[in-house]
Amino acid sequence: MKGITQVYTGNGKGKTTASLGLALRAAGHGLRVCMVQFLKRNPKCGEHLFAERTKAFEIFQFGAPPIPDGKIYVPIKRKSAQARESARRAFAFLEEIIRKGEYNLIILDEVNLALDYGFVKIDEVVELIENKPENLELVLTGRRAPKEIIEVADLITEMVEIKHPYKDGLGARRGIEY
Amino acid sequence: MKGITQVYTGNGKGKTTASLGLALRAAGHGLRVCMVQFLKRNPKCGEHLFAERTKAFEIFQFGAPPIPDGKIYVPIKRKSAQARESARRAFAFLEEIIRKGEYNLIILDEVNLALDYGFVKIDEVVELIENKPENLELVLTGRRAPKEIIEVADLITEMVEIKHPYKDGLGARRGIEY
Repeated sequence: MKGITQVYTGNGKGKTTASLGLALRAAGHGLRVCMVQFLKRNPKCGEHLFAERTKAFEIFQFGAPPIPDGKIYVPIKRKSAQARESARRAFAFLEEIIRKGEYNLIILDEVNLALDYGFVKIDEVVELIENKPENLELVLTGRRAPKEIIEVADLITEMVEIKHPYKDGLGARRGIEY
Repeated sequence: MKGITQVYTGNGKGKTTASLGLALRAAGHGLRVCMVQFLKRNPKCGEHLFAERTKAFEIFQFGAPPIPDGKIYVPIKRKSAQARESARRAFAFLEEIIRKGEYNLIILDEVNLALDYGFVKIDEVVELIENKPENLELVLTGRRAPKEIIEVADLITEMVEIKHPYKDGLGARRGIEY
């Protein structure tokens, strides 16, 4: 199968969630799938519990402090050398698993945000996409995808928030938002 | 947990896929999940193979002919009495499972399209949303969500197609698109 590069970006819901749906569907067909999470650290998310139990796909997290209570990823105002270093390790790990060729589908969760933070270089990711094995599908998620990534990727979807209840005071809910 | 009504609409990728991600995440936390598919009939989709194997959630399909080869749902130009009848049965089934209270999360896949086709009445779905049990989460997918649904739902995300390679001749791929 010819693999392409997909991007899910924008300020709306459903970016990571859509990539999880892709993981599930690909796993259903017996493809080997993993998700590499930039900036995130929360092993109690539903997707982790699910992946652990079913072994349908793997999730590798590379978040680092400071992540405030109740948040699952490094906020823009609290960038740290440690968070940057974790993102660097995530990228190196990614290069390694691509080289080894163990997966048919690799999700780079929140990589767009890591690019926006300046933790990962745009050129590096562009090169990764351009030189990926032909049968590998890449999925990049996160708001603020840089224009260089938009140019080089094949399928781009923007999630646009039309209406959001949390602004009315409903907090993030276990089992739904994480 | 307080359940809300989410809608994923728009012409972009990731509507059904995001709802599958929600299913996976909720199942990870031990919630009971099902997807009721309007207009669709393709038991060989990755999500069906996955649901069958893992028993993590259930999928009920209510598509009917004519569905052309290579398509997974009833196209707008080939509406039939049989397809309409299947959509009616899907809605009746939905009312029944909501009444029984067996699920925490129910996905109404492609219901927006069924509304657009006139197979299901907007008033009926609005009423379903307004009278749903408080602890039930509803997720509606499909392009062309009617404005009455947008008004009554809590969380609306529009998937916008920014770039799409199939227009360049790449067909739908097993394990990725279905």
